[in-house]
Amino acid sequence: MTLPESKDLTHFFSEEAKARKPSPLKTCIHLFQDPNIIFLGGGLPLSDYFPWDNMVVNTPKPPFAKGIGAPINPKTNELITAQLKKNEKVHGGDVPFARALQYGFSQGQPELMDYLRDHTNIIHKMQYSDWDVVATTGNTNAWESTLRVFCDKGDVILAEAHSFSSCLAAAQAQGIITFPIPIDEHGIIPEKLEQILDNWTEGAPKPKLLYTIPTGQNPTGSSLSDDRKEKIYKVAQKHDFIIIEDEPYYFLQIDEYVKDKDERNKLYSRPTPTHDEFVKSLAKTFLSVDTDGRVVRMDSFSKVLAPGTRLGWITGSKKLLSAYVALHEMTIQAPAGFTQSIVSTTLHNWGQSGYLDWLIKLRHEYNLKRDCAIDALNKYLPESPIFTVNPPIAGMFFTVNIDASAHPDFATKFDSDPAKVEQHIYETVVKHGVLVVPGVWFVTEGDTTPAQPASSKQNPNPNIIFFRGTYAAVSPEKLEEGLKRLSETLASEFGL
Amino acid sequence: MTLPESKDLTHFFSEEAKARKPSPLKTCIHLFQDPNIIFLGGGLPLSDYFPWDNMVVNTPKPPFAKGIGAPINPKTNELITAQLKKNEKVHGGDVPFARALQYGFSQGQPELMDYLRDHTNIIHKMQYSDWDVVATTGNTNAWESTLRVFCDKGDVILAEAHSFSSCLAAAQAQGIITFPIPIDEHGIIPEKLEQILDNWTEGAPKPKLLYTIPTGQNPTGSSLSDDRKEKIYKVAQKHDFIIIEDEPYYFLQIDEYVKDKDERNKLYSRPTPTHDEFVKSLAKTFLSVDTDGRVVRMDSFSKVLAPGTRLGWITGSKKLLSAYVALHEMTIQAPAGFTQSIVSTTLHNWGQSGYLDWLIKLRHEYNLKRDCAIDALNKYLPESPIFTVNPPIAGMFFTVNIDASAHPDFATKFDSDPAKVEQHIYETVVKHGVLVVPGVWFVTEGDTTPAQPASSKQNPNPNIIFFRGTYAAVSPEKLEEGLKRLSETLASEFGL
Repeated sequence: MTLPESKDLTHFFSEEAKARKPSPLKTCIHLFQDPNIIFLGGGLPLSDYFPWDNMVVNTPKPPFAKGIGAPINPKTNELITAQLKKNEKVHGGDVPFARALQYGFSQGQPELMDYLRDHTNIIHKMQYSDWDVVATTGNTNAWESTLRVFCDKGDVILAEAHSFSSCLAAAQAQGIITFPIPIDEHGIIPEKLEQILDNWTEGAPKPKLLYTIPTGQNPTGSSLSDDRKEKIYKVAQKHDFIIIEDEPYYFLQIDEYVKDKDERNKLYSRPTPTHDEFVKSLAKTFLSVDTDGRVVRMDSFSKVLAPGTRLGWITGSKKLLSAYVALHEMTIQAPAGFTQSIVSTTLHNWGQSGYLDWLIKLRHEYNLKRDCAIDALNKYLPESPIFTVNPPIAGMFFTVNIDASAHPDFATKFDSDPAKVEQHIYETVVKHGVLVVPGVWFVTEGDTTPAQPASSKQNPNPNIIFFRGTYAAVSPEKLEEGLKRLSETLASEFGL
Repeated sequence: MTLPESKDLTHFFSEEAKARKPSPLKTCIHLFQDPNIIFLGGGLPLSDYFPWDNMVVNTPKPPFAKGIGAPINPKTNELITAQLKKNEKVHGGDVPFARALQYGFSQGQPELMDYLRDHTNIIHKMQYSDWDVVATTGNTNAWESTLRVFCDKGDVILAEAHSFSSCLAAAQAQGIITFPIPIDEHGIIPEKLEQILDNWTEGAPKPKLLYTIPTGQNPTGSSLSDDRKEKIYKVAQKHDFIIIEDEPYYFLQIDEYVKDKDERNKLYSRPTPTHDEFVKSLAKTFLSVDTDGRVVRMDSFSKVLAPGTRLGWITGSKKLLSAYVALHEMTIQAPAGFTQSIVSTTLHNWGQSGYLDWLIKLRHEYNLKRDCAIDALNKYLPESPIFTVNPPIAGMFFTVNIDASAHPDFATKFDSDPAKVEQHIYETVVKHGVLVVPGVWFVTEGDTTPAQPASSKQNPNPNIIFFRGTYAAVSPEKLEEGLKRLSETLASEFGL
């Protein structure tokens, strides 16, 4: 079956992206490969002078029988010793340093891009033909690039009512208006989104982008259902905007939380899922429902391999990706060569199936971490309608939701202001030796004036405040101790 | 002697830089180091899951007796085998992967920054106390960041009349007006710069920045004298602008070209300069004359180690650098961890003196390359007032200047338009198997309206066109063959 081409949505490009002239130097770069031409065009140092060769690095070996956190011990044979040379490939997936450390390949090194295209074909069912991938230096920079590619000062973008504060701040500093979309414990409510856009004030600039973290949302920990994604996509078609799918936590999709430990152990003693079962168990992606080429997906190795790789990739229609490549040529040029070389050889050494093994084992670790956090909260937090915890099914974060109006001093000391309770609890909790982040730090400070004010009410109960914690960053012992401290402080604050 | 503090020049910041709110998450990050706090604040994956450990890589060993281009052969002992581990330092300058590959340290890893501060103290005589360094992903991105930090749409910046086209294009895409400053074979003419600014149209926005490549300028290959730098700095003080000193080629300062081979061989058979002699031989930098903190210097490892490190650094007053760090936290975060780790251990293994050895040997290689290029032009290009070659004393580039009006078809086929001759020669030269870049690709397309039009005339003879070539990228044999082809084509075109 031949897939159709994507739609031309380049009218969404920012003035800057439209004004970006391709460097005249790029018009002759094809002659660099021409054997008949002596190319004295570019300031490329000779790779003879690159002072590194014969790199060896150990990586664990699929299927990672001892778990992905086991030390990579050269004394066992459960590791792969990857070799990288300056001038030749030791293994097909290598990017030799003479190329990796030279200028060029702003889209990303071919071996790595090929791997990511194959990975895309395994994970997403692409609905149009002219898609591709472009290497990025991680989703923070990919988001900044996205804003530069699509938005001018005064443009409006949509975002979850609570979202990743750095991403919102990046937009706001550029003079871009962030407009909050109501969410519940399952993420964006499609009907509310549609209602807001149906009632958008006539003449006000319509939003160009929806920024969403569908899986293990930051900060709420919620995950959008497949059903909601399809509905949201239809709204995007109806109101003509682009969906930016920011998915650093996509492969941290975990099982539903099971409180009963016997039942849970039964669940976890099932055989490891096959690769097929694993792929089928993953949430449908916006990319998979995209027939128009109006989804730009941002993936990252930060949460699945390591943040300091500073390596990720975007997937979308070639028509849109071309503007990212043009921008990258004037900014990052490309991710660092060492990173591309090492990650490419690692992934090719593992193979697509080995990488799925890695992701399956990673999921298992996060199952245990999530369980540890929720178990501790169940154990130490008093049972009371004041506190709500929704066990996450993805990502690194959980939230403790609190009815601030139940605080004994709510009407007196705090002037019936939930924000004052939130700040007080934050400070008290830190004094008791644990840091969790107040939800107010993640509010999408929207200018809601373009829409009907009624539609932008986000919270049915304005007295509900929340704190975000992570179960990713510390050991189980510390996690339990931290949540004990949190719970005891909350209990004492609310007189329970 | 206690140095004075830099001036507060933060009024130059762009609206965007001023609007950039520090992420609230940063207000609690100091608690991450507090042993009494269990930090559940950030989405940091456990370093146990980073799939790399026990890296080994070979680098050549100072003083690089066989030259810097010699193969790094494990069979000889003229190499250093650097080891990098996940959880511990093998050597003091290491950045273990558990830290290098984690989030954090947006200014750059401490070991690497310490090395660069020491290097700065060796190379520059800083005149104020509160300077620092910040890691970048190379000068292309550092320049883009500079524009974002200082410039709003409609702002004016000054640049050499011919300058690096990508840098100009980046500014122009952002709606920033680039204003050309007249240059001669020694770079910016200080008197012309002053004259332009003295006569700047009243009420027109005054330039915020001067963008300059002082050493081995791209494309002209010229180098600013120490004397001119001091004069230009005084103009910057008088007219209150910031100097952006883009110095990727700074350490490619070479000897004056000596045509006579006997004399040249005598010169090159002198003993290798001591480190002191080498440092003293280097051009004075804008950073060294800067008393106010109005110079931001961009350095890069691209030309001295390898472009694909995607690693450089900026040096300037802490007051200005803070805006770069705030921007980096929303864009690149930091250079890639593998790069910082590998470059830091390499530089610390070499020591400051070993790095100077490297730079001394690098200079020697570029001496030979420059000589090879100029020798070939002397040999093959007909002696004629039509052609001028100014042998460069730094960088990777040379130019062949041509009086287009001497072309036999100038008045007829080319309508007395030197640009038409330039395009024709470019195409003809490519047909003859060599690529050099026409100077028109580097013209600073300035809006000269804010200043007196008379001041912006750049070229005393508008019929002089030029082509830029590099001697960096190919072997001596190819270089000579390429310049033979170029010379023969030019001779034939001009009927010589």
